[in-house]
Amino acid sequence: MTSASLIRRADMDFLLLDWLGADRLAEIPRFSDLSRETLAALLDLSETVASRHFLPHYKTADVQEPSLDESGVHILPEIGVALSAYAEAGLFGQSFSYEHGGMQLPLTVAAASFAHFLTANIATAAYPMLTVANARLLTTFGGEALVDALARPEIEGRYFGTMCLSEPQAGSSLADITTRAVADGEDGLGRRYRLSGNKMWISGGDQDASENICHLVLAKIPGPDGKLIPGTAGISLFAVPKTLVAPGVFAGERNDVVVAGLNHKMGYRGTANCLLNFGEGQRHRPGGAAGAVGYLVGEPGQGLAIMFMMMNEARLQVGLGAAMLAYRSHRLSVAYAGERAQGRPRGVMPDTRPIPIARHPDVKRMLLAQKSYAEGAVALVLYCFHLADLAEAAEDAEARQLLDLLTPVAKTWSSEWGLVASDIAIQIHGGYGYTRDFDVEQLYRDNRLNPIHEGTTGIQAIDFIGRKLIRDKGEAFTLLLSRIDATIARGAASAALAETGRVLNMARAAMADMVRELIADPAGTGAMDNATAVLTAFGHLVAGWLWLDQALAAEAARDRLPTEFVDGKVATARYFAAYELPKIPGWLSPLRAAPLLLSEVNAELF
Amino acid sequence: MTSASLIRRADMDFLLLDWLGADRLAEIPRFSDLSRETLAALLDLSETVASRHFLPHYKTADVQEPSLDESGVHILPEIGVALSAYAEAGLFGQSFSYEHGGMQLPLTVAAASFAHFLTANIATAAYPMLTVANARLLTTFGGEALVDALARPEIEGRYFGTMCLSEPQAGSSLADITTRAVADGEDGLGRRYRLSGNKMWISGGDQDASENICHLVLAKIPGPDGKLIPGTAGISLFAVPKTLVAPGVFAGERNDVVVAGLNHKMGYRGTANCLLNFGEGQRHRPGGAAGAVGYLVGEPGQGLAIMFMMMNEARLQVGLGAAMLAYRSHRLSVAYAGERAQGRPRGVMPDTRPIPIARHPDVKRMLLAQKSYAEGAVALVLYCFHLADLAEAAEDAEARQLLDLLTPVAKTWSSEWGLVASDIAIQIHGGYGYTRDFDVEQLYRDNRLNPIHEGTTGIQAIDFIGRKLIRDKGEAFTLLLSRIDATIARGAASAALAETGRVLNMARAAMADMVRELIADPAGTGAMDNATAVLTAFGHLVAGWLWLDQALAAEAARDRLPTEFVDGKVATARYFAAYELPKIPGWLSPLRAAPLLLSEVNAELF
Repeated sequence: MTSASLIRRADMDFLLLDWLGADRLAEIPRFSDLSRETLAALLDLSETVASRHFLPHYKTADVQEPSLDESGVHILPEIGVALSAYAEAGLFGQSFSYEHGGMQLPLTVAAASFAHFLTANIATAAYPMLTVANARLLTTFGGEALVDALARPEIEGRYFGTMCLSEPQAGSSLADITTRAVADGEDGLGRRYRLSGNKMWISGGDQDASENICHLVLAKIPGPDGKLIPGTAGISLFAVPKTLVAPGVFAGERNDVVVAGLNHKMGYRGTANCLLNFGEGQRHRPGGAAGAVGYLVGEPGQGLAIMFMMMNEARLQVGLGAAMLAYRSHRLSVAYAGERAQGRPRGVMPDTRPIPIARHPDVKRMLLAQKSYAEGAVALVLYCFHLADLAEAAEDAEARQLLDLLTPVAKTWSSEWGLVASDIAIQIHGGYGYTRDFDVEQLYRDNRLNPIHEGTTGIQAIDFIGRKLIRDKGEAFTLLLSRIDATIARGAASAALAETGRVLNMARAAMADMVRELIADPAGTGAMDNATAVLTAFGHLVAGWLWLDQALAAEAARDRLPTEFVDGKVATARYFAAYELPKIPGWLSPLRAAPLLLSEVNAELF
Repeated sequence: MTSASLIRRADMDFLLLDWLGADRLAEIPRFSDLSRETLAALLDLSETVASRHFLPHYKTADVQEPSLDESGVHILPEIGVALSAYAEAGLFGQSFSYEHGGMQLPLTVAAASFAHFLTANIATAAYPMLTVANARLLTTFGGEALVDALARPEIEGRYFGTMCLSEPQAGSSLADITTRAVADGEDGLGRRYRLSGNKMWISGGDQDASENICHLVLAKIPGPDGKLIPGTAGISLFAVPKTLVAPGVFAGERNDVVVAGLNHKMGYRGTANCLLNFGEGQRHRPGGAAGAVGYLVGEPGQGLAIMFMMMNEARLQVGLGAAMLAYRSHRLSVAYAGERAQGRPRGVMPDTRPIPIARHPDVKRMLLAQKSYAEGAVALVLYCFHLADLAEAAEDAEARQLLDLLTPVAKTWSSEWGLVASDIAIQIHGGYGYTRDFDVEQLYRDNRLNPIHEGTTGIQAIDFIGRKLIRDKGEAFTLLLSRIDATIARGAASAALAETGRVLNMARAAMADMVRELIADPAGTGAMDNATAVLTAFGHLVAGWLWLDQALAAEAARDRLPTEFVDGKVATARYFAAYELPKIPGWLSPLRAAPLLLSEVNAELF
């Protein structure tokens, strides 16, 4: 079943139609124009544009990194060409409303399209990812003038967007940012401020492929005493264009935003990652004064709350990117293992021909593990986008609860296990996989970023335990359990999957017991100290559930689907139950056996 | 306890003296000159040479890769300078007998010295590693003339050595090599052959730093029908010098060995890795004829058996290399986490100063995990070298049994978990760790080779289950259990470690039950299919045992050692029992729950 396409259409069709029933989103008024035909056409278009324009420069962009000179950052010209093609196909606008010049498609469908670009070339795809999330924030929270001036050109793909949160001294800890925003009157775009400070790790922070760049910047407005308010409460959000656009005021002037340096990364190199200085007042002085001109989005002090919208979308997109790198790592491994002949089955004489390594049990184990992580992660993230569609377009409160619960899981499980899938790809390729002649080496390096950016695994875990489990006393978790139970109940009727359901039910019970205990006694179980272990275990439970659910959906469609396809889903669900779910008790063990160990260990002993 | 030294002397002194009692090797006649003073002087020298000559070009060698032109391979000049310093210090000869011009030191001591070079710059250290293992094979199995002509200059550090096993079509499957060796008379160096064939993945296959290169090459001598014998039985071993040295015959002529290409690797880049063509007869024709001149080592058909000596040494060295990359990854992480301030303890107000991230529980968890893998792997490998000294110099039969059992563990556990330690180092460094400005990114890429070369993890696992567990019906395993039980018995008397011993005893019981079952019924438990899972579980049991043993030794020496040092060992042993040993049942689960799943899965379904 290996094919030359970036994404096997059968995989995506199954997930979207047979499993999620995404075509039924057409029942929601906003998506009433959606049809199977529009969906098929969009996926065709995505496969074509991604194959023709994103994939060919995958390795080139790894070798020819962005460069910086007096005029700014220069990126590989092929990236600009690819993004023009992406814009010309209207793909920036997929999920935006007709009113904003978009296609008004569900997020689920836009994600299925975007998956092609992520798997082909994640570093090039990062530009539209950030641009779309940026424009969505502006269309949701920005005034009409800002939308017209910045979001619309982003939706057309003429302007690109960034998110400027971290600073050199404040990575995970946004409470400690020191970028200042001082009121500077008002103009046609709204309440104007002058910003000064340094922002670190800004992907797409500068490039020479778009007409303009809209930075969304977190900064603090000083109080009457000139001091910044400690903590996150004092954070506000500003739209800071690279080139100013307010009609009649500074229009066409370069804003006081300067690239102070480029980060040279392990992978993901096509995405220019910058240290930006705002308000230096040296090279650019809009209107003759220092300070980067920015426009308040929302109200003062709401910055972080608003930015969470973009962060949550970006987290799902990071999960999707990790999943699609894992997916490509898996497909390349399947192709290699099917061709590379090495060794013989046990007991077969050495004068026979060697067999493809895909037939060796240990290689099958690695391929099954990859498939379970890669296709499992794609399913998990698409499930979350589907929840987002139901939550936003159909105001489904349960979908909102589940989405909030699962967002850190979709980000983290996909990043952590997607990376393992890429690591396994190197191992399956052996020495060849360790060379730069094969893509899997780069896929690993690209994927290594995903457990770090948009909130590290440790940060996601604290969010998950604190905000998603303990704060609502397990309400969303209980809701999720009812969905898991429904799948287990259906599984009991399947001869091939009843045992899988039984194992899943045991994992579900272990997790439910643990969550009950840790909500009742967070301190006694070391719940916050062991947040990562809990998120890891929970992620595997969710993945195991979705695998059983996928396998049941495949079995139900057995008359329409190729036999190998259905068998592959069933075998992977069985693999996951046999090899992966039994890991859960071990991960949870310290919460009962040694809950206080981490707190007790003195950091001086290292 | 962070220091600027490559290896904290306290760490090495503890392992060598307090834990292993390596100074007592002086009781063995071969090592009667060994003293604590010579050991200390050797470690001082190693730290100095490694810091001055190996560490400074660590990054340079990553960027300026080996290049190939008509004259051969050129490596970074600093590598040659470093290796000259290594030779001048006499370090090539550490473990060789006085008779061969060596220092006649135990392998354990030589490993402790070599650890400094591996941690400083593994790619440069690969040249002496291969050279020493090559010379040891020659001094053990080669005739006196070969020893004089090739091994002695290697022991002096003038010639370097390689091992030529794999071919492009035969990586893990040596049975399928097709390099041919045809008899070509005899000369002063012994039985001469002419070799032709291609060898792939040859580390140090060519370079411009040594006077000559001795390739040890596996090849097949055709039968009377001109055909090669299938399988490994037909493999013989040949010493093939780059420049011929047989007195009076071809001396000084270039042998018919040509570099056909360089592999461009993910990491480990300072080590030139070559595709070598033997016997092309184009550029070099020694004595006017095609065919690389090689000298038979041992008898025809013994090639693989003899080569296993070099492979076993190389496997321990790979384990040591992985351990030392993990060790440096950990030390750099400790330093970074102690300096990088970010966030506050739970419940502390945001107007206080941020704390070093080493004080956050999740970061402590990562530092403990790293320490357990890094120092655990160093201990495991040194333990194996100590067994090798006892087996070889004291003819200790139990030590031989344990060494055979533990060699695949030392190679695999160190490679797999050492790599995790390097991965965690990137995570602890956050975005900074993902940039090439910090060494941890390169340490990861360098370390990624270790689970692949000298036998992949899957190959080690098959060796472990088939040759080390099932073939001797668990005899060596039972012997090891008695050593584990002795440690557990000692642990019961320690207040701080009794619980750790109890957890270890449970893991020991789970493993012992499983090994009994799989020896009794290999097919029914899917033992060979699940070899990797068994080796993974067994490796963790061994590591947990050695951690308890280390912690007990540290406690016993509490009056002489710094408190933080002892507490660090005890905390890490407790961490390993609480967080790592509980993973074992999950890994072993499929052998009972789904033993035949991998065999049943059809490779076509991917």
